[in-house]
Amino acid sequence: MAGLSPAMTMHGEPMVRGTLYGIGVGPGDPELVTLKAVRLLRAVAVVAYPAPDRGESFARAIVAEWIGPHQREIAIRFPMRPGAPPVAIYEAAADRLAGELEAGRDVALLCQGDAMLYGSFIPIFARLAPHHRVEIVPGVSSLAACGAAAGQPLATRDETLTVVPATLPEADLRRRLAAADAAAVIKIGRHLGKLRRVLDRLDLAGAAVYVERASLPVQRVAPLAAVDPEAAPYFSMVLVRRGGPF
Amino acid sequence: MAGLSPAMTMHGEPMVRGTLYGIGVGPGDPELVTLKAVRLLRAVAVVAYPAPDRGESFARAIVAEWIGPHQREIAIRFPMRPGAPPVAIYEAAADRLAGELEAGRDVALLCQGDAMLYGSFIPIFARLAPHHRVEIVPGVSSLAACGAAAGQPLATRDETLTVVPATLPEADLRRRLAAADAAAVIKIGRHLGKLRRVLDRLDLAGAAVYVERASLPVQRVAPLAAVDPEAAPYFSMVLVRRGGPF
Repeated sequence: MAGLSPAMTMHGEPMVRGTLYGIGVGPGDPELVTLKAVRLLRAVAVVAYPAPDRGESFARAIVAEWIGPHQREIAIRFPMRPGAPPVAIYEAAADRLAGELEAGRDVALLCQGDAMLYGSFIPIFARLAPHHRVEIVPGVSSLAACGAAAGQPLATRDETLTVVPATLPEADLRRRLAAADAAAVIKIGRHLGKLRRVLDRLDLAGAAVYVERASLPVQRVAPLAAVDPEAAPYFSMVLVRRGGPF
Repeated sequence: MAGLSPAMTMHGEPMVRGTLYGIGVGPGDPELVTLKAVRLLRAVAVVAYPAPDRGESFARAIVAEWIGPHQREIAIRFPMRPGAPPVAIYEAAADRLAGELEAGRDVALLCQGDAMLYGSFIPIFARLAPHHRVEIVPGVSSLAACGAAAGQPLATRDETLTVVPATLPEADLRRRLAAADAAAVIKIGRHLGKLRRVLDRLDLAGAAVYVERASLPVQRVAPLAAVDPEAAPYFSMVLVRRGGPF
């Protein structure tokens, strides 16, 4: 990015720094990765990704076949509990990746879905972009995967589409959905009961389709009414479209 | 899809029909095509795509390297003028593709960006899905490509994201943008002057980034104020985000 004043080597030559690639790896199906993501993944020295406290990273699993034993891997571990992760995790991860970039190594930072649409690494890009070369590689979003799974348009023609996190307070959720032509409600998990109440009151529950783990073999598509509100995973979405036939 | 009663051959065996693949080919960079799109494209007997009255199809150009001389190609030609295309074009295209499917041939129907996000072929899927096997392959949306090009999040955390067609009447555009946390205004073209007025009055023009032909070599990213309102192509977008640092 602009404004870099490159560090110098002992011989007064500019030091070559690495590039940070923020790579959207898509919604989960390993075939929904782009050619560009595969090319960069195979080329970088370091692959970093989000992971739970313990256990495997979903983002890494999506592209596992393209990661080789010669590549350094960095798991950025997040506590698996609701709410925003501690800022210290982003700080520490940004510092660690900055070290790799300053040593001249290219880093791929994997993001599920698309990197810039509610991407969990946006705070890391924001920290590193002023001082390092950062390139974002867009990916197939879970939004696109849910529309494909449901076989229904997210929006068409002159409709507006509103993407609404289910984590909003009930009154805000209601206000947003009341105003929407078409909506995709994301981050469902334990908020499904609240969302059901809101859609029932707006008389929109019948127009709502529930999609779980879109693009994976365990993908599930169901009318919202058929879903147990206690059993929705985080990776689920509800699509609502007011418009009739398209 | 469910409910098909398969036609029979002369020998009383069910006739094998083709599958229609609705394939999102991404925003323009041939490397932003998915592995699944490439696999299906190389396998199908027929490749169909939108095209202008005269001249080349942008969707076809994106994946040209994967189309072989043994494949039948069907250009679905649209008049290059504002407004919704005549229904007769969709009717004729659906009939033609139905003929291929009934003859047992698989068909890939190419869509720029993602197929279900304002996809131009939604009316064709709607006509064919009740009678044929249809599978939608999601793609990288121009939305994702614009966020990547601008190097700024489309939305983050608990923000809502509203996708608004610039073709709306000025009062509707104003109402939608006034209520949005973050917005992506699409289908800009000759509507840029109107959008500028709306954003100026909402005091949001300073927070607006203009992106043109995202992911192509001619990609352009500029503050909205720097853009000639008479010169915006259809393939441009304006991102507005109220939130401060992320």
